[in-house]
Amino acid sequence: MTENNWHETKIRVRYKDTDRMGVVYYGNYLTFFEAARSEFMRDLGLPYTEIEKDGIFLAVTEAHAEYFGNVDYDAVVTVKARIVKCSPVRVHFVYEVVDETGRLLVTGRTKHACVNAEMKPVRMSREHMAVLEEGR
Amino acid sequence: MTENNWHETKIRVRYKDTDRMGVVYYGNYLTFFEAARSEFMRDLGLPYTEIEKDGIFLAVTEAHAEYFGNVDYDAVVTVKARIVKCSPVRVHFVYEVVDETGRLLVTGRTKHACVNAEMKPVRMSREHMAVLEEGR
Amino acid sequence: MTENNWHETKIRVRYKDTDRMGVVYYGNYLTFFEAARSEFMRDLGLPYTEIEKDGIFLAVTEAHAEYFGNVDYDAVVTVKARIVKCSPVRVHFVYEVVDETGRLLVTGRTKHACVNAEMKPVRMSREHMAVLEEGR
Amino acid sequence: MTENNWHETKIRVRYKDTDRMGVVYYGNYLTFFEAARSEFMRDLGLPYTEIEKDGIFLAVTEAHAEYFGNVDYDAVVTVKARIVKCSPVRVHFVYEVVDETGRLLVTGRTKHACVNAEMKPVRMSREHMAVLEEGR
Repeated sequence: MTENNWHETKIRVRYKDTDRMGVVYYGNYLTFFEAARSEFMRDLGLPYTEIEKDGIFLAVTEAHAEYFGNVDYDAVVTVKARIVKCSPVRVHFVYEVVDETGRLLVTGRTKHACVNAEMKPVRMSREHMAVLEEGR
Repeated sequence: MTENNWHETKIRVRYKDTDRMGVVYYGNYLTFFEAARSEFMRDLGLPYTEIEKDGIFLAVTEAHAEYFGNVDYDAVVTVKARIVKCSPVRVHFVYEVVDETGRLLVTGRTKHACVNAEMKPVRMSREHMAVLEEGR
Repeated sequence: MTENNWHETKIRVRYKDTDRMGVVYYGNYLTFFEAARSEFMRDLGLPYTEIEKDGIFLAVTEAHAEYFGNVDYDAVVTVKARIVKCSPVRVHFVYEVVDETGRLLVTGRTKHACVNAEMKPVRMSREHMAVLEEGR
Repeated sequence: MTENNWHETKIRVRYKDTDRMGVVYYGNYLTFFEAARSEFMRDLGLPYTEIEKDGIFLAVTEAHAEYFGNVDYDAVVTVKARIVKCSPVRVHFVYEVVDETGRLLVTGRTKHACVNAEMKPVRMSREHMAVLEEGR
């Protein structure tokens, strides 16, 4: 956790992540966001698997990304993640991806709703929500 | 092309597209958007490869998706695409993904800037732009 | 179904499928194999979803691919598939991928074992096996 | 580097890596192999990007995987890699993927030919080959 409450996850760009333009394919940043929020929650003390043990899934209801720069194979990007909204029924994350020099590549956000296996809205436990609150 | 100028592309959901929740992974809809705009441009008479022959790439500058429903393996989704903005330097697409019953799954948009291989802004030819204008 | 019992599935190469070498990433052919055997089984009259309705999964136990040629974005490849072995407990497929000129790109095979949701070996119904036998 | 010259790379399984069976999709192990040989070459002192600086690519000519076990989201797998053959024109890798308890999940191999950007066979420099020899 850095100042301003940004959590940081480092990801090495694979050949698989690139496309014929020689840069990371635009859709793959959503995978990077996922990896980052997964590490973020683990470091908060609430691995996503813990939430699923309650039969609760954080289904994505909205995803957004803006692209400012590109990186190629073998680059190490830092995905910064932060929780900007948190209630018993929803969690919103924002992200910033930078390269090794700190150059901004991508900003993004994902909104999640708490649902059960049948995709019906449910409420997170008070304990779990208290943990996520610390990520704000 | 249907009324309201929506172009339609049908995509069969692969096992690979799904995740452990038994639904299409949220990031994969950006791949579906790409497949749809590729077919759209081909049907307009301007395959994306034609644009690249001019040394021009339609780099994604922004992507957005909202999720309303889910589908599992083997479903056939229809990705509807339309151009909502078009200038010599940018093109904006919007999308709607529906299942076989017409149920709305995802809406989205992607914004693209015309760049050269060095990712510097360039202008599309008047001819190419005229073709894309027809997709509005 | 063509002579020699090859089933054929056409797949349009997406930008997402390519890597920075400007060709389809080697691992993605396993996804093409999956799409092809899925279409193959559907055309035989036994969609894979029908097998899963019996609580049976065709888990991959082995996959192999040899690479002879490459294709880039927007190419249409034909994935030819055939069943070479079939018993109540296993199914083996072979594949050939060719481009629009018939040039050979990739050959491959996948071996599958019938398992239940707990990944324990089970036997396919006589009826299902009879259908797959026709794919040989 | 462990005894027996196995190089080890740890990879955290992402949601994106899984499919509706709740396990890593079979084709994704080829991506894990790629990530592992990339780290392996870096640790040998010859990042793959160094080879590409000579205009040489290690194109995959063959890939093989056998599946013995499964893992789900959030597991950390260790991909062990070793070079089993190395000449100025080709390099062969083998892999073993194990879970956190050492349980074997997948074994595999990839064969690579040295080619230039036109996919024509070329010879690696003596210096580069000497480095790879150390990975045997």
